Amino acid sequence: MATLSVPDQLPPVAEDCDRLHNAFQGWGTDEGAIISILAHRNAKQRSLIRQTYAETYGEDLLKSLDKELSSDFERAVLLWTLHPAERDALLANEAIRKLKHFVVLEIACSRTPRDLFLVKEEYHARFKRSIEEDVAQYTTGDFRRLLVPLVTAYRYDGPEVNATLATSEARILHEKITEKAYNDEELIRIISTRSKAQLNATFNHYNDQFGNAISKDLKTDPNDNYLKLLRSAIKCLTWPEKYFEKVLRLAIKGLGTDEEALTRVVVTRAEVDMKRIVEEYYRRNSVPFGQAIKGDTSGDYESMLLALVGKESD
Amino acid sequence: MATLSVPDQLPPVAEDCDRLHNAFQGWGTDEGAIISILAHRNAKQRSLIRQTYAETYGEDLLKSLDKELSSDFERAVLLWTLHPAERDALLANEAIRKLKHFVVLEIACSRTPRDLFLVKEEYHARFKRSIEEDVAQYTTGDFRRLLVPLVTAYRYDGPEVNATLATSEARILHEKITEKAYNDEELIRIISTRSKAQLNATFNHYNDQFGNAISKDLKTDPNDNYLKLLRSAIKCLTWPEKYFEKVLRLAIKGLGTDEEALTRVVVTRAEVDMKRIVEEYYRRNSVPFGQAIKGDTSGDYESMLLALVGKESD
Repeated sequence: MATLSVPDQLPPVAEDCDRLHNAFQGWGTDEGAIISILAHRNAKQRSLIRQTYAETYGEDLLKSLDKELSSDFERAVLLWTLHPAERDALLANEAIRKLKHFVVLEIACSRTPRDLFLVKEEYHARFKRSIEEDVAQYTTGDFRRLLVPLVTAYRYDGPEVNATLATSEARILHEKITEKAYNDEELIRIISTRSKAQLNATFNHYNDQFGNAISKDLKTDPNDNYLKLLRSAIKCLTWPEKYFEKVLRLAIKGLGTDEEALTRVVVTRAEVDMKRIVEEYYRRNSVPFGQAIKGDTSGDYESMLLALVGKESD
Repeated sequence: MATLSVPDQLPPVAEDCDRLHNAFQGWGTDEGAIISILAHRNAKQRSLIRQTYAETYGEDLLKSLDKELSSDFERAVLLWTLHPAERDALLANEAIRKLKHFVVLEIACSRTPRDLFLVKEEYHARFKRSIEEDVAQYTTGDFRRLLVPLVTAYRYDGPEVNATLATSEARILHEKITEKAYNDEELIRIISTRSKAQLNATFNHYNDQFGNAISKDLKTDPNDNYLKLLRSAIKCLTWPEKYFEKVLRLAIKGLGTDEEALTRVVVTRAEVDMKRIVEEYYRRNSVPFGQAIKGDTSGDYESMLLALVGKESD
């Protein structure tokens, strides 16, 4: 469930382009106009705007935005305007080069198999390499052993569940975790190849048969970054809104804000499941997410985020 | 370069369907008619025939063929009639279950990345599981360590080559091979993620820097099945017509014929690169491939193969 709101009566694309072009004219930039248009158009509509804008004004809309905007607001608008697969390819490439394993994992595990494939295609087109090559190149040891199969997989995406398999693989997982063989091939094979529905069944069996949630059993050393990654993969695959709530919570809480994480989650989920993430956020923090944004951000950046999460009028 | 020949003046699809339907009527079956139609239609045309046939006669053409034909001829016609991605999904599933690792490897390494992806989609649709899940389930040890990444990869498919990388990765490969670490993670990572163009450059550097072709250095123990698989992967990725020539040579030579391999190579390559495979066959065996087929097969099966390799009139 998305938080993105698109007006019932959509103006013609040419009109959107004109208004955007006008917003860039003269001395100041009309950020309000940019938000009122782009933050209320879905991926297909934004793509059409970008195409028409380029045809009409001979410049890529992203380039115009890049010239006119700055800092966190700029990044949010640029990332949002991109097509989701293109955006993910860019985010993944940046994360791979900056060794932000969690972002790579997030993209690999929270997108649908089909959407992840589209990201891989965009990655080929833009970087002339495969995403798995780059992940393999920038990671080592256990991180590589886990991340490469996770980004590479093309999981089955149907609802069918094999209960016998769930029982036997829950047993394998428990056995490996008991032996502290967290980087075991079988364990990684199960987590990186099984469908999300199947994994969900397996983790439920694990809980039922062995009395603990698998994530809990993987929390033996809270400072072990590999275990953290493994727990995140499990969370991301089977309960994405809970995973994203935590990313947002950590981005907002304490002194300072992690704008990169905040922007990433809002722009990548606004058209997907942001409504459930916002609900989960409230459930967990007893603070409405809109209010949390207002407390931690300001100006156009704040307005952009609020527009994307459907809270601009609160 | 395909060997498939399609007539310049194609009859209407409805006429092909009528002729096929007539070929199934009465006492005998008109195998000649079946060959003259199906063995001279490309994938798109066959698919259209199948669709129109089902609409006209209320039965899947494959089912009609299945009822009328038998043994090697039947298998060749059925496999050929299928859409390539569907055919590969079926072949892969059969090979996985029968532990024919070489066939799995062949499909993973000789198809274009895009075609391999289409196979994975067909596999999902038909078997409600991913191909990598099944490969992982039916293999163990080193075989699994190599085959799972090979079937999973979505390689970059462009012509760009990074020479620095080719040099450094040739060095890594040589190091691991010298240490007899044939199942090493780095070695498998390189072979399973790099683009075919990049791998080709790497193997050339290997040859230039270390004086031997990599395949030769991997031939320390001719009876080691894992090493055989590794060499086949290298051959299949960088020189598929040579790989397929060998499969055909082994299928034909000696007493008896391996019809399964013969059929598989002919039906899967007739629309792709069979012309080059046939040339390579002649270069290596000094016997024209058409003649070899005539020597080892007979009847309708022989006619079908000859039609597909463009040698029916020889």
